[in-house]
Amino acid sequence: MLNRVRSAVAHLVSSSGTSSQRSKSPDLPNATSAPLAAPETPKSPRKKPGNEVCRPQKSLENPVSFSRPTFLQLSPGGLRRADDHADRAVQSPPDTGRRLPWSTGYAEVINAGKSRHNEDQACCEVVYVESRRSITGASKELSHNQGFCFYYWGLFDGHAGGGAAEMAARLLHRHIREQLKDLVEILQDPLPPPLCLPSTPGTPAVSTTSQLVSPQSCWSPQKEVTHDSLVVGAIENAFQLMDEQMARERRGHQVEGGCCALVVVYLLGKMYVANAGDSRAIIVRNGEIIPMSREFTPETERQRLQLLGFLKPELLGSEFTHLEFPRRVQPKELGQRMLYRDQNMTGWAYKKIELEDLRFPLVCGEGKKARVMATIGVTRGLGDHNLKVSSSTLPIKPFLSCFPEVRVYDLTQYEHCPDDVLVLGTDGLWDVTNDSEVAATVDRVLSAYEPNDPSRYTALAQALVLGARGIPRDRGWRLPNNKLGSGDDISVFVIPLGGPGSSYS
Amino acid sequence: MLNRVRSAVAHLVSSSGTSSQRSKSPDLPNATSAPLAAPETPKSPRKKPGNEVCRPQKSLENPVSFSRPTFLQLSPGGLRRADDHADRAVQSPPDTGRRLPWSTGYAEVINAGKSRHNEDQACCEVVYVESRRSITGASKELSHNQGFCFYYWGLFDGHAGGGAAEMAARLLHRHIREQLKDLVEILQDPLPPPLCLPSTPGTPAVSTTSQLVSPQSCWSPQKEVTHDSLVVGAIENAFQLMDEQMARERRGHQVEGGCCALVVVYLLGKMYVANAGDSRAIIVRNGEIIPMSREFTPETERQRLQLLGFLKPELLGSEFTHLEFPRRVQPKELGQRMLYRDQNMTGWAYKKIELEDLRFPLVCGEGKKARVMATIGVTRGLGDHNLKVSSSTLPIKPFLSCFPEVRVYDLTQYEHCPDDVLVLGTDGLWDVTNDSEVAATVDRVLSAYEPNDPSRYTALAQALVLGARGIPRDRGWRLPNNKLGSGDDISVFVIPLGGPGSSYS
Repeated sequence: MLNRVRSAVAHLVSSSGTSSQRSKSPDLPNATSAPLAAPETPKSPRKKPGNEVCRPQKSLENPVSFSRPTFLQLSPGGLRRADDHADRAVQSPPDTGRRLPWSTGYAEVINAGKSRHNEDQACCEVVYVESRRSITGASKELSHNQGFCFYYWGLFDGHAGGGAAEMAARLLHRHIREQLKDLVEILQDPLPPPLCLPSTPGTPAVSTTSQLVSPQSCWSPQKEVTHDSLVVGAIENAFQLMDEQMARERRGHQVEGGCCALVVVYLLGKMYVANAGDSRAIIVRNGEIIPMSREFTPETERQRLQLLGFLKPELLGSEFTHLEFPRRVQPKELGQRMLYRDQNMTGWAYKKIELEDLRFPLVCGEGKKARVMATIGVTRGLGDHNLKVSSSTLPIKPFLSCFPEVRVYDLTQYEHCPDDVLVLGTDGLWDVTNDSEVAATVDRVLSAYEPNDPSRYTALAQALVLGARGIPRDRGWRLPNNKLGSGDDISVFVIPLGGPGSSYS
Repeated sequence: MLNRVRSAVAHLVSSSGTSSQRSKSPDLPNATSAPLAAPETPKSPRKKPGNEVCRPQKSLENPVSFSRPTFLQLSPGGLRRADDHADRAVQSPPDTGRRLPWSTGYAEVINAGKSRHNEDQACCEVVYVESRRSITGASKELSHNQGFCFYYWGLFDGHAGGGAAEMAARLLHRHIREQLKDLVEILQDPLPPPLCLPSTPGTPAVSTTSQLVSPQSCWSPQKEVTHDSLVVGAIENAFQLMDEQMARERRGHQVEGGCCALVVVYLLGKMYVANAGDSRAIIVRNGEIIPMSREFTPETERQRLQLLGFLKPELLGSEFTHLEFPRRVQPKELGQRMLYRDQNMTGWAYKKIELEDLRFPLVCGEGKKARVMATIGVTRGLGDHNLKVSSSTLPIKPFLSCFPEVRVYDLTQYEHCPDDVLVLGTDGLWDVTNDSEVAATVDRVLSAYEPNDPSRYTALAQALVLGARGIPRDRGWRLPNNKLGSGDDISVFVIPLGGPGSSYS
């Protein structure tokens, strides 16, 4: 994200802060113990050839290294060209190579110079989930229930360094897999999820779900919990565990900065779209636009941030006030009445200015210039454990949330045609275009290709990236309307909704 | 609201708690000093005859008294009939009397026995706002700017006693008037609202807005604040001040219980619909339904409540946990893994049950049975300052918010026909019907009357109340489909959107 963190007022203090000791999943691979190239072990007989492992090309141990997604199959020369801020060549998986899972289209371009490397990262995987029960000794009769696959797409838009985005691209889907291991039988059982499981992970398995404590045996009334909400909970916890892992390993492994995360999980007929940050996902279906995410910024999360500052004033130090003013209050305005709003208000009112109001507002600015603590322009994501207010030891992380909002789209509820797509883009795309323009490009590009042409979705991703980047003219990157194109990193996934479908799940 | 507060587990401790000393508007009339029958002083030359003052028929000083809105013009005998739980006669303003402002329709009915009296209250007013500046000495040249009128409708659904609803019906619009006094010139000036006002209320007036500190004189960049958002802020602060007044006066004046508040302010061409609680407002326009409010319940506000419990665990005492479980955890389930979710999650996951999880969940139950601290089923409103958890001194008020959500509807953006209406109803209406059924009733009833028949909106309100109450059959109040009708108090306003229009503002 362009200027998401104001380097003028923020710095990274890599040596401070204590790392969290909590680990929900102690058996998870981590950056230290797991080989970076550890395969995702797709054991499912239904897994297609051509699904690749996404891993960074260089070890994170070398802080000056950088990487692009493996599925781009970049040669050393290609990697240099992808890193060229002057050319800004659009990158896609090669036509000659193996295609991405689910006929996915992908394209990306580096920024115009705002950071040394492209800080976006991407991952596209088919991940096999082996049941924790079957691992620990299920009977052979249950082999059909021993696992399932999920499709996975992730866009990670880094800021203040590429480390967090690289780590998330490499590991977040493993955290999701880990969270799903307990749910393999439950999600494939048409009965409602059991209220209780009798054992902790790793203890001897229960061979059938009927041996679990079923809802019927627990006294009513109790809340009904759906299968969908278990997947949502698994994704939410995976985000948190990923964030905690970054906190633990930030010192040894140069997990610099933070990243927005936009993730799609396809599982058992449904798309789960999880967003933490300001990337965006939309479905374009028969020309209609269906928003699949919303952005989390100081403006959209103002009341959450102000409430936290109000309830925990120690988080504001002596520098900030939780009240919002239209601009910073001047000392000469003491005693006057100025427009303000607090954590409870959506409207504005006048208040008499007191000494405390001269502090800097926790939330200030508008649009792309909106900031938390004058520093960061995005309020959800992974990492940022070392982010401090400039000239201060005040940490910003307590105001940032690592939790995504998850929306569910049931693929089976609609007969999708080959032109129906789910588009994921980092804010480099959305800063200079909007949903309607993207939908128009979807229509224009896809109608120029045969419905069964496998290159059409990559062509669409490229057209979207090119349309946001523009062409070099008048000392800048310009769009056809002569407005400035996006100078940010731009990354786009195009997922056809009429794609491989549920037969692959 | 039927069973909104579980009397089995909650009690009212009228002698405990300290009253807030804060008063934003010390010159506001209060229950002690202001005559209950104080007229709203409609000084505007544009104010129509027939606009009445809404005031309770009996003083609040007598705790056994009860009242219905004055605009019902009930005789002592009529008041007794309105209070009859067996008959449940529908009450409306008499045909022979003066009509409600804005051709408003109104109907109400008492509950089937859940509380001694009808705990709903209503208010319908035209309120004149005199500028605080002109009060304090504006020049005569500015007389056209000395004030304006707003139309006002309020529905107050009381619980655990009728005192809070009565007080809100009597005073909330005065708080709104008080908040608007500073804004009279600003709202009528096409320029953006000034960032600063040079004086505090009550100091010598500034005669023209050009003497105010204009946005241009404050350095940019600054956030633009709209006129609408000032009205929203005024309503929000008025709700808070009303709640604080209830806290101050609860001991001397028997302000029992609490109430939901659904309020509409029509001002300068726009309807501001403010809701705190589980009443509901919808617009039915050319058959289309436009929701104008949402309900605030333990389910819809779960994450706000859990976050507060998480950040301020002292508010939970040793009795409650901020985690949600599908039902209360049993001691024998210690060590098992049970479904849960915390303040960050919308999905569910399994966690190992520990000792702390045996506490009662802060939020529990579903639908109409959902409760905060096993006690109250609504999470926003006015009052409830004495509400405690049963057998405990733990106050529930910290979890309740007095702030409404305000939605704005611009009447000038659409050519309304006489059948376009804004319907306000307490939950007694919405518990047994839905938006579509109400829209169908709007169509059915209004099409049976001439467009200019002044009784059509009252007839519609009556039809809606009757349709929710049902008729006595099989030892209960039954709807035509033989389902149970609402046993709660039911109150309905019908506001025609093609009504008197902006010429009255």
